[in-house]
Amino acid sequence: MVYVIGIDGGGTKTKAVLADQTGQVFATAAGGPSNPNSVTEHEIYESLSELFKSLKKQSPEAFDQVSICFAGMSGVGLDPNQSSLKTVLTNICQPYDMDVELAHDGVIALYVGTGGQDGIVHISGTGSITYAIKDNLIKRAGGWGYLFDDLGSGYSIGKETLAAVLQEYDGRGERTVLTSKVLQYFNADIPPDLVSLIYQASNHRTLIAQLSKLTFDAYEEGDDVSIQIIKQAAKDISHSIKSLANDVYANHDQVNVVLSGGLFKRDHIMIPLIKDDLKGTGHAYNLQLLYAEPVFGAVIGGLKHLGLEISEGFMENILVKHNV
Amino acid sequence: MVYVIGIDGGGTKTKAVLADQTGQVFATAAGGPSNPNSVTEHEIYESLSELFKSLKKQSPEAFDQVSICFAGMSGVGLDPNQSSLKTVLTNICQPYDMDVELAHDGVIALYVGTGGQDGIVHISGTGSITYAIKDNLIKRAGGWGYLFDDLGSGYSIGKETLAAVLQEYDGRGERTVLTSKVLQYFNADIPPDLVSLIYQASNHRTLIAQLSKLTFDAYEEGDDVSIQIIKQAAKDISHSIKSLANDVYANHDQVNVVLSGGLFKRDHIMIPLIKDDLKGTGHAYNLQLLYAEPVFGAVIGGLKHLGLEISEGFMENILVKHNV
Repeated sequence: MVYVIGIDGGGTKTKAVLADQTGQVFATAAGGPSNPNSVTEHEIYESLSELFKSLKKQSPEAFDQVSICFAGMSGVGLDPNQSSLKTVLTNICQPYDMDVELAHDGVIALYVGTGGQDGIVHISGTGSITYAIKDNLIKRAGGWGYLFDDLGSGYSIGKETLAAVLQEYDGRGERTVLTSKVLQYFNADIPPDLVSLIYQASNHRTLIAQLSKLTFDAYEEGDDVSIQIIKQAAKDISHSIKSLANDVYANHDQVNVVLSGGLFKRDHIMIPLIKDDLKGTGHAYNLQLLYAEPVFGAVIGGLKHLGLEISEGFMENILVKHNV
Repeated sequence: MVYVIGIDGGGTKTKAVLADQTGQVFATAAGGPSNPNSVTEHEIYESLSELFKSLKKQSPEAFDQVSICFAGMSGVGLDPNQSSLKTVLTNICQPYDMDVELAHDGVIALYVGTGGQDGIVHISGTGSITYAIKDNLIKRAGGWGYLFDDLGSGYSIGKETLAAVLQEYDGRGERTVLTSKVLQYFNADIPPDLVSLIYQASNHRTLIAQLSKLTFDAYEEGDDVSIQIIKQAAKDISHSIKSLANDVYANHDQVNVVLSGGLFKRDHIMIPLIKDDLKGTGHAYNLQLLYAEPVFGAVIGGLKHLGLEISEGFMENILVKHNV
């Protein structure tokens, strides 16, 4: 039996799981951030060490048989092997005699959707980013940050929502039920009150992104302004997918596409819109929602690296909810 | 002879001028910010007091004959008479036996363009805002801040410019000469390098707005992407003007429109585009660029308040460059 540690490292938290090739989970652990853009190398070392200790404590026998640690981390830069994270991980894994593989966080999100096959993964939460992965080549579109490029993200939907409310108020925009929804959400009397409420918030980026929930609600009520905003977000997401498909999968008929992130909680709205936008573009897209946690994509990455096939049984096992 | 003190108060600086009804200038002074959103009342009191002392020192005789101080200030809120700035100004002016009038900064920008007549004023610098002024009624469109509404501003042009550069880079966007221009401006090698450069800058709002210069340059070179960005900005500005005209000037054939702010340094580009967008909309727009400094609009406001006509001679005098 082959045992793997998978790690999903991000800017707010890091998750780890110890599983075998059948998808049986022996230990899980979660800790602080491990994105080198948000914390120091030393802090990453400390929090990863804690995760390893916790995994070992939960299942010492399985831990001792782990062959490889595969980590999908945000902020690894253009070449994962050049990343300082590689050194940190190696320092942690060497005493346990484990191999180390480091990849972009996009890789593990893709793998958990496709069972380790290549394809395109689009992630829309507060921000948004799209990766195309093929034969160890990785290309990205978007994700350049909320100030000037987060098309198709929760933030961009929230921003357009606030703009629509203020534009209705000052006479430039159409009537929209978003106004009453947003005012109620903030317990505000008139739209100008929203301005200082939002600028003074320390977390205005997530605050604005959360408003996308109201936009989806208004979409379902048939609000024209919200329909425009949501359709534009779907168009922007589809455009990223098409651009990468035309570039990386130019000679392929079929492309796997995994959709991941909080925005796809409204999959019954987003999936049909994206499917529509992707029609008649020369590729057949195999759209898939991400149901399991990306950390299992890291386990898949480890198994792939060892030359193992990902069995159907493995995929079924990881779809059983594991709260990490 | 009637003497007036005009004040133009903003978030970064405050200007003051002492002039008579013929437009002759006796004293000018400049000091720190006086927007209650950026500094305390006490600081505003201190810096306005300094300005008054300076005016008095430069021309004690004219100063002693001043009948009214008219101030156009940013951040005065919905009702200038309710503003805390009114109290501050009154405290300063009472010992000198001057009347005090407080107005929005948009009012003085309009007046200096129209010689005191009503109309619409649009200001596009780093941010953007449009005011319609009619019989002491003031309505605004836009200006809700860079995060979610600064359509037609230098910031929005700069933001679209950066987005275009990154979208060309990651394959989503068209080729554009903006890429080489922006990389050169920041002395950067590849577009992703721009991301951290801009997010780490303490003044990213003004930094992004300054890029609009490059977009105008590229527009003149015939760059398609830049033409789209600039045309969209002109459309957004025209839309604000039309919305306010339809609301405030519904029963008027002719509307005065004053264009003010750094964006109109490229008037040979912006004016024809805006004129085009305003065609066939039911109003005849009398478009005018702002050539004199808004602080003279405060002098006009003071003269108007005293029931005086603004003479042609006055307007000619203030167009002579006075550096305040």
